[in-house]
Amino acid sequence: MFRLGLCQIGGSPDKDANIAKAEQYIREAAAGGAQVISLPEMWNCPYSNDYFRLFAEAPDGRCVTFMSGIARELGIYLIGGTIAELADGKVYNTCFCFDRNGEIIGRHRKVHLFDIDVDGYRFMESDTLTAGDSVTVIDTEFCRIGVAICYDVRFPELSRKMALEGAKLIVLPAAFNTTTGPVHWDKLMQVRAMDNQVYFAANAPAQVEDGIFKAYGNSCIADPWSQFIAHADEKECVVYGDIDPDYVDKIRNQLPLLKHRRPEIY
Amino acid sequence: MFRLGLCQIGGSPDKDANIAKAEQYIREAAAGGAQVISLPEMWNCPYSNDYFRLFAEAPDGRCVTFMSGIARELGIYLIGGTIAELADGKVYNTCFCFDRNGEIIGRHRKVHLFDIDVDGYRFMESDTLTAGDSVTVIDTEFCRIGVAICYDVRFPELSRKMALEGAKLIVLPAAFNTTTGPVHWDKLMQVRAMDNQVYFAANAPAQVEDGIFKAYGNSCIADPWSQFIAHADEKECVVYGDIDPDYVDKIRNQLPLLKHRRPEIY
Repeated sequence: MFRLGLCQIGGSPDKDANIAKAEQYIREAAAGGAQVISLPEMWNCPYSNDYFRLFAEAPDGRCVTFMSGIARELGIYLIGGTIAELADGKVYNTCFCFDRNGEIIGRHRKVHLFDIDVDGYRFMESDTLTAGDSVTVIDTEFCRIGVAICYDVRFPELSRKMALEGAKLIVLPAAFNTTTGPVHWDKLMQVRAMDNQVYFAANAPAQVEDGIFKAYGNSCIADPWSQFIAHADEKECVVYGDIDPDYVDKIRNQLPLLKHRRPEIY
Repeated sequence: MFRLGLCQIGGSPDKDANIAKAEQYIREAAAGGAQVISLPEMWNCPYSNDYFRLFAEAPDGRCVTFMSGIARELGIYLIGGTIAELADGKVYNTCFCFDRNGEIIGRHRKVHLFDIDVDGYRFMESDTLTAGDSVTVIDTEFCRIGVAICYDVRFPELSRKMALEGAKLIVLPAAFNTTTGPVHWDKLMQVRAMDNQVYFAANAPAQVEDGIFKAYGNSCIADPWSQFIAHADEKECVVYGDIDPDYVDKIRNQLPLLKHRRPEIY
């Protein structure tokens, strides 16, 4: 059993302020007993194609240095939400993960870029971002943890792959909008948990009225039977959940979904 | 656009009565304008390992003959729920599908057998049934339709496969119980619809208090945006939904999930 803390914080066009706020909430989560702490998608940067490249950093930049330092200082695992990562002239939407010593133990680059044109809402991440090309799991002394980012959740194949690779918890930094959020968010997180019999935690940004992006918020943690053990509204907060890897095993013994798969016919 | 009618009917240990009831509801659905009509899982037989073999029939048996005849008489497509099928000495949980001429155009044998042992509820289909080994889609002049059975829905791979093979509607004869039903049923159907951007229709038996199996009922139809266009309670009824294959195309154009898949990394 260990405590997970999701920092639901709002971002701004001021990187200093974003780092200061992340630090404040990470410290709060650690004080609240969280041993694994996460941040939301693009916590260092407004969620807009106009800002990603401008705010992007290499892995030796300020944000990664900050995250590594605070993970080490507090002795916590940090799933660092996402930042705009600059590498080889390209920009990725990247989650860096740190162990208790501040070492990078995982780096997930968003695999599915969000290109959508629904009535009244158009957004094309692929205009500025490059997609990653791998599945990411990290190891802790508690359990293996899968990491994916926002739109990645819409592809059941990816959560399944992480579960088959041994993840018992999946953490998803994710900024849904207020069009798709109310209709799809809760059910997606619950059914990924249900299908894969994992804890599924979605870490959203808080909603801020900055005219750039209106986040849905609603960070939540579903258990392996699909029930929410924690659920936020849209305001800034830390969402805590006690994660019991033994409960994952119990559910998988009762209803052995992963064993009952028929991969030869799919 | 075409009308789908799901016959949510209760079964009994009296096969004559089951056939008579199926006939009554199929006629009602056709009178209500349904051009594609379905029946629930194991409508000809109590849902119990004690009865499957006893009630099982070969494809030239009474139930298939009845279904073929009424499809032809009414000029409807019939997705025949499931019956216990006897073949080569084995018993399958099988959905026969008929065109407007009463010809068999599909036969899905349940691919995943339901073996569960959750607190207070134990059931092992594999004690008596044999699993099928193929994915089933049928063609109509309206659209391609995928067919799966109950526990098959818990495996996102199967719905995905049917969608990739061109299904725009998936019909699932399914008898959930009152333990898993309230927690999992609605969300599963909605997220299969959402992920695959199909209409997803689940045809449950009505709840009867026969001491053998207490069905959850709740037949429903979710649209490709995951919203219910029809939803029953637990009592006998016909559930109607107007299915618009063009709306499937519209949703898939707005949010191109099937195109955004990254099969090379899963």
